[in-house]
Amino acid sequence: MTDTLNGFMEKHKGILDKELKNRISKLDTPSVLKEAMAYSLEAGGKRIRPLLLFAVIDSFGKNPDSGLSTAAALEMIHTYSLIHDDLPSMDNDDLRRGKPTNHRVFGEAMAILAGDGLLTYSFQLIAEDQHLQAAQKVELLQLLSKCAGPEGMVGGQVADMEGENKKLGIDELEYIHTHKTGKLLTFSVLAGAIIGGADSKQREYLEQFSHHLGLSFQISDDILDVTGDEELIGKPVGSDTGRHKSTYPSVLTLKGAKEHLSRHIEEAKKALDHTHLNTEVLSQITDLIAYRTH
Amino acid sequence: MTDTLNGFMEKHKGILDKELKNRISKLDTPSVLKEAMAYSLEAGGKRIRPLLLFAVIDSFGKNPDSGLSTAAALEMIHTYSLIHDDLPSMDNDDLRRGKPTNHRVFGEAMAILAGDGLLTYSFQLIAEDQHLQAAQKVELLQLLSKCAGPEGMVGGQVADMEGENKKLGIDELEYIHTHKTGKLLTFSVLAGAIIGGADSKQREYLEQFSHHLGLSFQISDDILDVTGDEELIGKPVGSDTGRHKSTYPSVLTLKGAKEHLSRHIEEAKKALDHTHLNTEVLSQITDLIAYRTH
Repeated sequence: MTDTLNGFMEKHKGILDKELKNRISKLDTPSVLKEAMAYSLEAGGKRIRPLLLFAVIDSFGKNPDSGLSTAAALEMIHTYSLIHDDLPSMDNDDLRRGKPTNHRVFGEAMAILAGDGLLTYSFQLIAEDQHLQAAQKVELLQLLSKCAGPEGMVGGQVADMEGENKKLGIDELEYIHTHKTGKLLTFSVLAGAIIGGADSKQREYLEQFSHHLGLSFQISDDILDVTGDEELIGKPVGSDTGRHKSTYPSVLTLKGAKEHLSRHIEEAKKALDHTHLNTEVLSQITDLIAYRTH
Repeated sequence: MTDTLNGFMEKHKGILDKELKNRISKLDTPSVLKEAMAYSLEAGGKRIRPLLLFAVIDSFGKNPDSGLSTAAALEMIHTYSLIHDDLPSMDNDDLRRGKPTNHRVFGEAMAILAGDGLLTYSFQLIAEDQHLQAAQKVELLQLLSKCAGPEGMVGGQVADMEGENKKLGIDELEYIHTHKTGKLLTFSVLAGAIIGGADSKQREYLEQFSHHLGLSFQISDDILDVTGDEELIGKPVGSDTGRHKSTYPSVLTLKGAKEHLSRHIEEAKKALDHTHLNTEVLSQITDLIAYRTH
């Protein structure tokens, strides 16, 4: 990791973590709910989505303050999706990032409610933001609800469930991932474009960028499930193949999956070049996501 | 029921039901998710919240079209809360309005996702509405997320769970109900004020109205749990007391609860009078809610 990227990440993670803590602590709600929400928010996530958002805003030369509520909302929605995915009736996971999952600590009912609370609160954060104009808020809320809801993440999660124990082709697999993981990454990038004030061309290229980045993210996730270090990834290696989930390596072989990954990264970076923005940090974050070790 | 009220309810229920059907059917998402979402939306709800909203808009002499997306959003959020409340880890109910609960038909995982989908989609409906101005949308989304989230309905649900098997006083009971049921009813009324264009005085009185209406709603619910007809209310009579939940009759006696109810209705109607709006339908809906038999 370069010094520039390192500095960028440390600074923005610091701002975000402070904001998340602050937003939960000031909630007027039963303390056990705050604890359950905070537990998963503070369970060591890599903050990839907020960092992406901040990197896009940065490429427009804008101040991170303008994106802070949206970054916090993004991390909350991502966290809610993990809490619900881990539930006994869903993936039934005991560990997440090496720590007991939310329902293992707070019980299933509270985990469902902590997820519901995080999802709903995330819309409140954007709607109440002081730095954005009404039209920007509406555009952000429109896009976020679409990317997170039935036509986005929730739809992808359903398709994933339906596809379990079935042999899926590469197209079906890409459909699942563009929705389950991709849409929220797309939102991270396009929210940055809305807040940064992108023109229509820039926005189009950033959309292409986010599409390839989203797929890269999922392919590298699947590769890690085969090659990763259990202690680093925080869940048993091979846990996806063990449950008969189709993965990129199982469909394309490990070598094929790695080639597929390289192609998407290349396309992602090409799209960035077309924006004529200062995308150095954004490009480095792309490599970080694609070639991460956990 | 008067002819005026009857006509009002039939007309607006018709508009709403068509909108809900339409909004689900046009979703680009796996069909099983659409089915699960539609199943609970179409399971015979009384549409109290949308009707309240329409009645407030009507009292300003405004067209129902301006409130249609918000009405659909309200019913979706209400429905999501019922689906999640009924889950095995929560209230573990097999029946809702006399029909098998969502998870009994679609399984627990799909029920969780149908709830998540309805909640998220409801924000999308308001954000995408064509009749409202950006500033109105932001105000509606702000209020809805606050009323439905950790400081509203979700918080009330947590407090309710925490209070189970404990002997609660009237203050704690009112805290639970103003949050679990009251906040969404408050939103129904205040959303009507926002869409109708209320001045600050009218808004204040409508807020008072909704406070008393919300409590009336819950008290009558508790009374029904003691006196109701099982076939009409769609769940076993006494199911709340059977699970050692504190209820208004158990804290105040049945007679006391009925007196408490009358007082809140009286206050609700006083507040309506102060608005100097045409609140005849709204007043009749208040009676309908308070003195309903199921």
